[in-house]
Amino acid sequence: MNSFFKELFFEVPSRRGFVNITREVENCLKESGIQEGLLLCNAMHITASVFINDDEAGLHRDYERWLEKLAPHAPTSQYAHNGYEDNADAHLKRQIMGREVVVAVTAGKLHFGTWEQIFYGEFDGRRKKRVLVKILGE
Amino acid sequence: MNSFFKELFFEVPSRRGFVNITREVENCLKESGIQEGLLLCNAMHITASVFINDDEAGLHRDYERWLEKLAPHAPTSQYAHNGYEDNADAHLKRQIMGREVVVAVTAGKLHFGTWEQIFYGEFDGRRKKRVLVKILGE
Amino acid sequence: MNSFFKELFFEVPSRRGFVNITREVENCLKESGIQEGLLLCNAMHITASVFINDDEAGLHRDYERWLEKLAPHAPTSQYAHNGYEDNADAHLKRQIMGREVVVAVTAGKLHFGTWEQIFYGEFDGRRKKRVLVKILGE
Repeated sequence: MNSFFKELFFEVPSRRGFVNITREVENCLKESGIQEGLLLCNAMHITASVFINDDEAGLHRDYERWLEKLAPHAPTSQYAHNGYEDNADAHLKRQIMGREVVVAVTAGKLHFGTWEQIFYGEFDGRRKKRVLVKILGE
Repeated sequence: MNSFFKELFFEVPSRRGFVNITREVENCLKESGIQEGLLLCNAMHITASVFINDDEAGLHRDYERWLEKLAPHAPTSQYAHNGYEDNADAHLKRQIMGREVVVAVTAGKLHFGTWEQIFYGEFDGRRKKRVLVKILGE
Repeated sequence: MNSFFKELFFEVPSRRGFVNITREVENCLKESGIQEGLLLCNAMHITASVFINDDEAGLHRDYERWLEKLAPHAPTSQYAHNGYEDNADAHLKRQIMGREVVVAVTAGKLHFGTWEQIFYGEFDGRRKKRVLVKILGE
C-alpha cells in the first residue's frame, strides 16, 4: 500500500470565484506513481469548496447567481455569525457545493466521465487558501 | 491491497427520476471479493447524482418538488448555461443531491444503517448514462 | 493494509442540533493505530448528517434558520412522505448538509485545516442514532 499527499495553494482575487484545478490534481497523481486507488481532494478552509462539474463559463455565472439567491451575502447583519466577520454566507454556500470529492484512480489516471472537471470554489477569497490532495492505493 | 471497478449503465426514460441501485452495487462488491475497505460510487455525468436515502415513493415526490423549487427547470432562458442546451437546472440540482457516496465495506458487506439505500438521481435523462463503482481494500 | 471501524452513538434531546464529534473521531484514529490512509465518517441514519465546518455558535444558529427556510418542517402536510411520519424535512435538510466526510490521515492525525471540525447534524432527534467511523490505511 502506498500513500501520497500534497497541499495546493490558491488565491482568488475576488470574494467569490471558481478555479479549474484538474491539471494540478492530475500532476499530484503522476507524482505519486499510484496506479490503482482512491484520491481525496478537499478544501482545508470552511468557506471554500472542492466540487466536480462542467468547465463552462455560463454555468459558473449560473452558480454564482443561484448561490447568492439561496444564501445571500448581504445584508451581512442577517447572520448571527457575522460579529467580527462578514462571511457567514460563505459557510452556507460551501455546504451546497460540498467540501470534498473522492475520485477513483484506475491505470494511473483519474477515472472520469467525459465532462468531469475538478473545481476549487471560493466564497471568501482575497487571501491564500489551501486544498489537500491525498491518494491511497498502489 | 486489492482494487476493483465496474461501470454501470442507466437510462431513465424521463428527464428526471430516482433509481435504487443498491443491488447492483452489492453485486459489484461480491464480484470484487473484497472483505474490508472503502467503496466509492459516483455519477460519471455532471447532471446526475448518486446519493443515499430512503426508498420511499412519497419522499421521492418530495425531492422532485423541492428540487424544482430550489432550481427550477423553466423558464430555461433564466440560465446563462442554456445556449445550446436546456439542462442548467440539472447541474444545480446535482450539487444539492451530491455526486458520490463513499461506503464502508465490513466483513464483505456494505456497512449500512437500517434504512440506507443507494440511489441514482437523474436530472437530464432520456439517454444512457454511467455510474462508477470503485472498491479499495482486501 | 489495515482497516478499523467503530460505531458511535449520539442522542440529541431536541428535534434538531449540531454536535462536535471531532474528539470521538480522533479517538477512533488513535485506537486504530493507522498512520497513513483515509477515514470515512458517516451518519447511519437518513435524517442526519456528518459534515465539516466551524465550531461557532452563531454559525450554528444561522444553519438552523437557513435550513428551516430552504426545507421547512411545518406545515408537515406539505410533504408526501409525511403519512405516518413527520420528518420529511429532515430527509431534505440532510441532503444539503451531506451524509459523510472523508478525511485524510497523515502521520497518525486527521489532516485538517486550522478551523475544520467534524459535526453530527441531527434533524430528527430525541432518540439514539449511530455514526460510523471506518479507517483504511496502514
